[in-house]
Amino acid sequence: MVRVVARRRRADRARQVADLLRRQIVLGQFPHGQLPLEAALAREFATSRNTVREALHLLREEGLVERCPGVGTTVAAEKYPHGLHRLLGLAETLHEHGEVTNQVRTMTLIEPPATVGHRLGLAPGEHVIYLERLRLLNGLPLSLDLTYLLREVGEPLFDADLAHNDIFVLLEGIAGQPLGMAELTLEAVNADPHTAAALDVPRGAALLMVERLTHLADGRPVDLEFIRFRGDRLTMRGHLNREPEE
Amino acid sequence: MVRVVARRRRADRARQVADLLRRQIVLGQFPHGQLPLEAALAREFATSRNTVREALHLLREEGLVERCPGVGTTVAAEKYPHGLHRLLGLAETLHEHGEVTNQVRTMTLIEPPATVGHRLGLAPGEHVIYLERLRLLNGLPLSLDLTYLLREVGEPLFDADLAHNDIFVLLEGIAGQPLGMAELTLEAVNADPHTAAALDVPRGAALLMVERLTHLADGRPVDLEFIRFRGDRLTMRGHLNREPEE
Repeated sequence: MVRVVARRRRADRARQVADLLRRQIVLGQFPHGQLPLEAALAREFATSRNTVREALHLLREEGLVERCPGVGTTVAAEKYPHGLHRLLGLAETLHEHGEVTNQVRTMTLIEPPATVGHRLGLAPGEHVIYLERLRLLNGLPLSLDLTYLLREVGEPLFDADLAHNDIFVLLEGIAGQPLGMAELTLEAVNADPHTAAALDVPRGAALLMVERLTHLADGRPVDLEFIRFRGDRLTMRGHLNREPEE
Repeated sequence: MVRVVARRRRADRARQVADLLRRQIVLGQFPHGQLPLEAALAREFATSRNTVREALHLLREEGLVERCPGVGTTVAAEKYPHGLHRLLGLAETLHEHGEVTNQVRTMTLIEPPATVGHRLGLAPGEHVIYLERLRLLNGLPLSLDLTYLLREVGEPLFDADLAHNDIFVLLEGIAGQPLGMAELTLEAVNADPHTAAALDVPRGAALLMVERLTHLADGRPVDLEFIRFRGDRLTMRGHLNREPEE
């Protein structure tokens, strides 16, 4: 039996502690958002106070906690769960956490680039609605969404209340049928300076980027979105099965 | 009908173009990894060459493309798709893309912090195997994985070939039953300096962080992992349905 117990660097131990604390923070497991004292954390994680201090430093760098002399360590900002179980709009998925509002930055009829037309199954020359929104939860920026919509379902949105409604719910009303399946791709990207300014995060902040092609229940693709979520404000949660369900 | 067609900043148009190019790059749609000339891209996206140049700059900052005078813009690094359809180990999901190898940084028997013991359903005092691995695809770092395993299934791994096997496959052999369901949480985080060094990325690089609790088919939780994927080398792909499948 080979036991690999190399002497571990403090940075490795700190990362390990930070990961466990991150989960407790995200799940809201600290009463009043107050973390235990360093000494108590050191006992709990069977490590040194220096390691705990470095772990808390990592979490502060991520914007998850604040540290104040005399006050200790407190949770800085809530991180919201976006379900990966089911296709939901932002207001639908976050309704327990507050009010989602949307600032429309641009909305216009365009002849789309070939790659967009192809994904939406358009004939050459067909137009789409292009929509750009900053989405806020309880008044704080959460995501920047770039959306291409089939003209037929997108054009009626010029008259809709986009500030207070998810596109998904509006599309279902316009199309007269529910949405069906969406393909999505998730990535982590650094915020470029302009995106950082729009989302009110530091340059280079980690963003959770989602590209999502949504179809109507009848199978027609209608909505292609490129979404940048603030990494410090959102998680995605779901489950996977070892055996495919189908 | 209200048409919102505010004059858009070049940064907004560049982001829009960058998102469309990113997708084509990730899907390998440019022959020999060579992007079209700026003038051709400007035509395709019905925008200015300055906007195209700014979009290409954004993609270079993400590490997706390289730009050389006389050579033009080429795809810098392949970005691999990790399926969100089914619970798979890294070597399983990437077998078409090359060889996954693993460097064991630490492997030891520990008394876990309360939060780990709770998630794995342990009685107080029960030990777990803690394992830390750097995972590489074709010799290049792809992820850093911190793993807590039930002692019963983790201890036999001291004698296993961890360098060339996914934990998932080894666990199924040891447990004599397949894995079942896993709960996972996805986040985007910035790389701290030590993690950045381990993964060979710049400090602050965006990482896709996955926390995953995997159960055996009989429902027992056995494997709690904290995984940091390089954001520039991996995407997660899946699909969602509007109506829950169950």
